[in-house]
Amino acid sequence: MDTFDFESRIIDIPDYPEPGVVFKDITPLFDDAEALRAVVDAICEHFSDAGITKVVGAEARGFMVGAPVAYRLGCGFVPARKPGKLPREVYSESYSLEYGTDELQIHRDALTPGDRVLLVDDLVATGGTAVATARLVEQSGASVAGFAFILELSFLNPREVIARDYPQDVFTLVKVS
Amino acid sequence: MDTFDFESRIIDIPDYPEPGVVFKDITPLFDDAEALRAVVDAICEHFSDAGITKVVGAEARGFMVGAPVAYRLGCGFVPARKPGKLPREVYSESYSLEYGTDELQIHRDALTPGDRVLLVDDLVATGGTAVATARLVEQSGASVAGFAFILELSFLNPREVIARDYPQDVFTLVKVS
Repeated sequence: MDTFDFESRIIDIPDYPEPGVVFKDITPLFDDAEALRAVVDAICEHFSDAGITKVVGAEARGFMVGAPVAYRLGCGFVPARKPGKLPREVYSESYSLEYGTDELQIHRDALTPGDRVLLVDDLVATGGTAVATARLVEQSGASVAGFAFILELSFLNPREVIARDYPQDVFTLVKVS
Repeated sequence: MDTFDFESRIIDIPDYPEPGVVFKDITPLFDDAEALRAVVDAICEHFSDAGITKVVGAEARGFMVGAPVAYRLGCGFVPARKPGKLPREVYSESYSLEYGTDELQIHRDALTPGDRVLLVDDLVATGGTAVATARLVEQSGASVAGFAFILELSFLNPREVIARDYPQDVFTLVKVS
């Protein structure tokens, strides 16, 4: 699967959601069976020797990538959700958006100190969501084993932001520079 | 996996999100590796001979169940999303909630007339979301092959609602009567 052309399946949507922005639509990597298999297998093969015990994915597209990765690795999947979605006691992390802030939560009993956690999402842009999710893992006493994303917007320098706090492996299938 | 005790893993949350309602928390079926494997394998084994070509799951917990089921069946996964989340041309279906209405959308090119589609979600309650999602499949010209849910609130009679329009197989892992 090393030669699968992920980039050609991503559709550019100019001026969406606002003028001057090029939205990267990654849904064609999910609705095609061969592409979905290639995405999940590439991430799992990269981290096959990393001793991963849990996968965390952020609402909502992170669920689409993270849950099959967890299934294939033989791990549990922990959703990082928007406030008000998880019914029991949670850890919370706020993070900055272009305008304002957002917040993610995980259940307090979802991870334990022995867990080695892979953080998975469809896209890494500024790195803010990735760092917030990693902090949720640390609040649980678990350790961050690495990060996997389908698409990396390299021109926003997310690797620098993540590396300030997390020197762990960051694996991406497609880079946009 | 026939003997896996799914029901014992579901946590009852009394008076959530409002007094008198018992919320069923299914996240423990995802964050445990053995439980996640049992959920996905049970659904996939039930539909293994149904000729499924695509799996559709509704935002957001339907992504957690549907994406690994699609991966395991060797199918593509199509997210049914809330309005404003899909950037290209969509089909839309509105459906009634207890108060007001909601709407789901899929990309117009996500399904084709030859597709046989399995509709997957974590929960079926009134059946409204399931029927709306099935109509999106029909708008695409594809055919509905069946429905799979982790949890069925039998006391709300979702099977009657679904059967009015869809005689296809409805498979659930846990029934609450």
